[in-house]
Amino acid sequence: MICVLTGGTGGAKFVDGLRQVIPPEEIMLIVNTGDDLLWWGLYVSPDIDSITYVLSGLLSRERGWGVKGDTFLCLQAMGQLGEPTWFHTGDRDLAVHLLRSRLLAEGKTLSEATSTICDKLGVKARILPMSDSRVETRVDTPSGELSFEEYFVQRWYQDPVNSVRFAGASDAEPAPGVIEAIVSADTVLIAPSNPITSIGPILAVPGVRDALVRARGQVAAISPIVGNAAVAGPAGILMAAKGLPCSIAGVAKAYEDFLDLLICDTRDARAAEALRGNGLRVQCTQTIMRTAEDKAELARTVLSFMIGGLLSDKPVSGESAARAGSDQP
Amino acid sequence: MICVLTGGTGGAKFVDGLRQVIPPEEIMLIVNTGDDLLWWGLYVSPDIDSITYVLSGLLSRERGWGVKGDTFLCLQAMGQLGEPTWFHTGDRDLAVHLLRSRLLAEGKTLSEATSTICDKLGVKARILPMSDSRVETRVDTPSGELSFEEYFVQRWYQDPVNSVRFAGASDAEPAPGVIEAIVSADTVLIAPSNPITSIGPILAVPGVRDALVRARGQVAAISPIVGNAAVAGPAGILMAAKGLPCSIAGVAKAYEDFLDLLICDTRDARAAEALRGNGLRVQCTQTIMRTAEDKAELARTVLSFMIGGLLSDKPVSGESAARAGSDQP
Repeated sequence: MICVLTGGTGGAKFVDGLRQVIPPEEIMLIVNTGDDLLWWGLYVSPDIDSITYVLSGLLSRERGWGVKGDTFLCLQAMGQLGEPTWFHTGDRDLAVHLLRSRLLAEGKTLSEATSTICDKLGVKARILPMSDSRVETRVDTPSGELSFEEYFVQRWYQDPVNSVRFAGASDAEPAPGVIEAIVSADTVLIAPSNPITSIGPILAVPGVRDALVRARGQVAAISPIVGNAAVAGPAGILMAAKGLPCSIAGVAKAYEDFLDLLICDTRDARAAEALRGNGLRVQCTQTIMRTAEDKAELARTVLSFMIGGLLSDKPVSGESAARAGSDQP
Repeated sequence: MICVLTGGTGGAKFVDGLRQVIPPEEIMLIVNTGDDLLWWGLYVSPDIDSITYVLSGLLSRERGWGVKGDTFLCLQAMGQLGEPTWFHTGDRDLAVHLLRSRLLAEGKTLSEATSTICDKLGVKARILPMSDSRVETRVDTPSGELSFEEYFVQRWYQDPVNSVRFAGASDAEPAPGVIEAIVSADTVLIAPSNPITSIGPILAVPGVRDALVRARGQVAAISPIVGNAAVAGPAGILMAAKGLPCSIAGVAKAYEDFLDLLICDTRDARAAEALRGNGLRVQCTQTIMRTAEDKAELARTVLSFMIGGLLSDKPVSGESAARAGSDQP
């Protein structure tokens, strides 16, 4: 069993690769819900939706979110009614929000609603929200405190960021199965997601960090930072707001209490060297995912590192490691 | 001010004519809400929607319900999620259900939500739900008791009908403005709607029948029955279930305590004669509405009858009455 902590579009891309190379039944996903929002009165869970769409084959790969081939007529009509339209919910996409909202209104938990939707869409991997309690990522800016989606989607992450907090986290409990999945997985992967606002909320749920420390399997993170910049999105700005450098060293620092292996891009080979000097296992490979094959290749390489890690503490040798680029001094 | 009691597709067609011939500011509509349903967790009010779409120019005239040019991708996606799809909500149409549901969830009344939606869509006529309380038309059949939409849309009104009741009616109050509108209007029109399940629920709200009796203006009904059959839908079956003949006499009977004038189709001239013998004022005209011009023409003719009624108790003379067909013995 492989347990993946994920959120955002980077995470969705990585999971899109993973599903191509291992049976879905062996994947357990723990998904960020800090971005969840009430939109038009419906409960929308952007990261759970993206992962659900990835695993059901419904994701629009062009956009990286929402349903492929979707239309936006309801959105247009909402605009005509004077309702906000900055969060783009497609007509097909709405179905999932409607069903989830109804299930929640009927008293189901987010875990149960997620499980029902996955069953209906034939998703065989297990998708667990990080928590069934409401944890909200709040971004403090000079214009005031914003929800993550306001900051990210509505305002195009243009605001300077003073700080980030996870409202409700201290009272939240991990969703059923989350701690067990982390502790007992053969391997725990931290997807190349924003460490602050995609993985950060998961880590803020009481018990999760400790479970990662206690994990039976190796814990590896794929860096979303390449060459001192985020591959996409505001990870750099948000890491700075948390006092972390925008580099693989910053990623390593964010996960330092539980990280066994950091997987970074070949372009960061020099920075990787420095981290190894500090005693961290680091592997370099091609991490940029443009095509379906890129995604599958990254997943295969990551898994080969992990199998190596299961067998010995030394980096794997052979084709995968060679293809991934030399990471030996 | 003209006050119209309406429901169903016949009512919507009549209002579509009326809006062509008098300023919308002079029209006050009291609309059936007995068909309202929770659909996918959203509050849908089919008759209010139809009238709102008519008056905003959004109605699909081909279908007689919903928004013109609408698509049904969310419906399709809901089907893929295993949700029911027999009630056809279009993607644009969903916007109104979403907004209304959110307003109701925020504590607004149905009247307030309706008024907000009308404002947003530029509807200048006043649309009042018959009541802000939940009144549900329940149709008892050999297969059990059905909601009106289950009976009408899901099961294509194929079930024999034992009886019809309006659950919640005895505890309901008329929505704000309903009684005043009826009592003080220059003219009250009962649209050519199903007397049992479109007008019946309105009449079942305590105080409405009495207001019609007390009305300052004349009360006229346009018969939805032509030649012993309903122009459309199950009015005949439902009238029979209430012990009323499926004829203009049955319509007259349904409204006998408050009706000043019955307007029926020229094809019912003979039946009209018989009713006149019983002391009811009856006018005959072309009531079948196929084209926009048919609708406008019926509205013009009805108004000419009413103006005549305001001036004297005798039927109007002149062009309108002549065109409408002789109704003199």
